[in-house]
Order: sequence, then structure tokens, then C-alpha cells
Amino acid sequence: MSEFAENERRIVVAIDEGDESMYALSWCLKNIVFENSKDTLILLYVKPPAPLFPSFDAPEFVITAEAMAKIEKYSQEVADRVLETATRLCNNIPNVEMKVGQGDPRDVICEMTQKLGADMLVMGSHGYGTIKRAFLGSVSNYCAQNAKCPVLIVKKPK
Amino acid sequence: MSEFAENERRIVVAIDEGDESMYALSWCLKNIVFENSKDTLILLYVKPPAPLFPSFDAPEFVITAEAMAKIEKYSQEVADRVLETATRLCNNIPNVEMKVGQGDPRDVICEMTQKLGADMLVMGSHGYGTIKRAFLGSVSNYCAQNAKCPVLIVKKPK
Repeated sequence: MSEFAENERRIVVAIDEGDESMYALSWCLKNIVFENSKDTLILLYVKPPAPLFPSFDAPEFVITAEAMAKIEKYSQEVADRVLETATRLCNNIPNVEMKVGQGDPRDVICEMTQKLGADMLVMGSHGYGTIKRAFLGSVSNYCAQNAKCPVLIVKKPK
Repeated sequence: MSEFAENERRIVVAIDEGDESMYALSWCLKNIVFENSKDTLILLYVKPPAPLFPSFDAPEFVITAEAMAKIEKYSQEVADRVLETATRLCNNIPNVEMKVGQGDPRDVICEMTQKLGADMLVMGSHGYGTIKRAFLGSVSNYCAQNAKCPVLIVKKPK
């Protein structure tokens, strides 16, 4: 038996609705976490922040409770769909956990990775659309610099 | 036998004279490449670029052939020392190769990773000193964005 089988690592894979994160997960399942492993694979999905500051003074910016509930429902549906797809990919792994966070993915991923006691964080190289990335920088770059554990960034081949 | 033992991956570890890159190598040996593996571990060291443009017209900038030879000799000694330390860490790994490049580490690491057909690149999170990093950005960020294969960035815990 290889030394490998003795390992019990906690590996967090940050997933979102993009193809790149599913590719990163698949790559991780082929190269890092194996069928017979004792590793725990933690799928982490971060929902966008809830709409902020519903204002009763400025009617043009009011977000009604009903609208907020709809946004929240849609956001939960997206989360469920992403986690379902990801879980299907992991059906040979004995120890899979799912976590859902909410907020700026850069902060949430770094904080939860630490709270979850991760030995490694795996993620796709993007995680925002092109425009948001131009303003905020890439989520993976931020996490590579700020997460407390080693970070594996997987790009989807073009 | 786990699926792991079937793998024959080519894993490049970029090393330099810093503690962080040796930590990244050790972490990789505990978590990614195992004793009995068929993986090939490629240690890549990048020497700084040779002094450019020795000029015969501007005496204040002349770098004599003798000075260049000294710089080159020193740079080779550093490379040998780093590779020797790294090789000692890998004494349980059957397939270890060493490669030395020269130039800007950002470009050389990305180019050689591709030429060597790497399945993964492992590196410490730095690779320049503080001041150079402020101007050039971190080598690992650059490689995470530009290398063609997945990149694992390992930070040394403080």
C-alpha cells in the first residue's frame, strides 16, 4: 500500500456556476483525491451577497421584501444546481461535505478555508466575469495570496 | 493498490534560494508526490539573467569579461547549492530530474513548464525580494495566470 493511503487531508474545492470550477474539481479528482482515499473533500459554494441597504427614504432604490425573497430564492436554486452537479462528479469519494457561504467570494473562500481546517484549497483560475475581474482582480489570485493553506489553481485548457 | 500508483505525472517544482521554495518542495513530497509513485519530479532552478549590453563606448557601464565570468561563476555556485539541497530532500523519489534555466523567472518558469510537458507546477508564494516584488508583482501570481498547467502555490506558515 502506498504512503498515499495513510493520508487524511481536508481538501476544499471552491466551486461556482462556471465550467472552469467544474474542470478544476474533475482535475482534482483525477490527480489529488483518489477513490480509496481517506481524504475529506469539501465542496464550497459562495452565494453572492444579499442586496444591501433597502431604503425606505429613496423610493427609486427600494428593494421590496418580495423582490429580495425572489433574489434569495433564485440564488439558492443556483447554489443547489451547482452543488448537485459537483456532488455527482464525486460519487466515488467516500467523504464529501458541502458548505455554502455568502458574500464576496474572495473573503468567504479564505475565511472558510481556514475555519474548515483545510490542508489545501483547489479552485479554477477565474470566478468572476471579465468585467468584474478587471475591477476586483481575480478571485484565485487573491486567494493564492491570502488563504492560509496551499492553493492549487487549475485552468481549463482552451 | 490505490488508483494513485497508476499515475505517471510530470510535476515541476520551481525552486530558488529562499526558504519558501524548499518548504513548497517538502510539502509537495508529503502531499503530492509519494515514495512509490511513478511520477517524475522535475526540479527547476532559474538563474538570474546575465548582465546585458557590456558596452565598449560608455566606460562607466563597462562590465569586463572577467567580471562577467565571476558573476556567472557565483550564479552557478548558487544554482548548484540550491539543487543539491533540493535533491537531498527528494532522496526517496525514484524519478527526479534537474533543470536550470536563465532569465526572468516568470517567463522562464512558464516556458519551461510547457516545454517539459508538466502536469502540474508547484512553487512557493514568493520568489522575488520585497522590493522587486513591489515592481514586478509576485512570480507565483504571474505563473498562476500564465502557466499552461495547474499551479500549486505553497506558502510557508509564519
